[in-house]
Amino acid sequence: MTGLILVGHGNFASGMHSALRLLNGECEGLVSIDFQEGTSFEDLCEQLNKEIDKFENDKVIILTDLPGGSPFKAAALAPFQYDHVKALTGINFPVLMEIALSKDYTEDIDQLIAQSIVNAREALMEIKLEA
Amino acid sequence: MTGLILVGHGNFASGMHSALRLLNGECEGLVSIDFQEGTSFEDLCEQLNKEIDKFENDKVIILTDLPGGSPFKAAALAPFQYDHVKALTGINFPVLMEIALSKDYTEDIDQLIAQSIVNAREALMEIKLEA
Repeated sequence: MTGLILVGHGNFASGMHSALRLLNGECEGLVSIDFQEGTSFEDLCEQLNKEIDKFENDKVIILTDLPGGSPFKAAALAPFQYDHVKALTGINFPVLMEIALSKDYTEDIDQLIAQSIVNAREALMEIKLEA
Repeated sequence: MTGLILVGHGNFASGMHSALRLLNGECEGLVSIDFQEGTSFEDLCEQLNKEIDKFENDKVIILTDLPGGSPFKAAALAPFQYDHVKALTGINFPVLMEIALSKDYTEDIDQLIAQSIVNAREALMEIKLEA
């Protein structure tokens, strides 16, 4: 099972998680980490690495809220520490949903990530319906 | 003041809102609506329109979680009902932050939306740092 770890400021991660749960039910292997005021960067890294370790040698994808800030920095360090970990930033709900629903049905995680990013960028748009 | 309304499934909207609050403090004119299980589409539309009405004739930008689903549909209807309302979908944190921080310092909301979408799509990426 491929692990999926949401991490972001405030309740970003648990908020995204709850939206996915409402739409698709609980997703196996999905964990959310809320980085709240008062938590140190070191504690966040420790918490993140602890979650990564739970997946043992399975692949893990980390999804973060924005480029910059502690969740991003913690996630950016992980692929150096673990060969089997990938990290994304600036994620939206469509990229979370596509990866969550497909992660355990593909061998090619790199391809899944690349294609999900293309699709998720397209989904981020102004709503313009023709009258 | 330009209004900004976050709306999404579960705690998507309040989660995004809390992340922005943590990073930038409270943003004036930002409202979040959590669409929870058991709420009807009609009730959601009513709640959304009530928030839009509070901004009277000021411009309003609605930010939703994904293309499809009740928050998207409610948001898609609003620009037909109100000339001064714009709606986006598939939003990520960077587009929220850019619009929230700039909305009251520009006359050209269309340009702000277009540029924010370009920037936010770029911010949605895999984290690949050179060793």
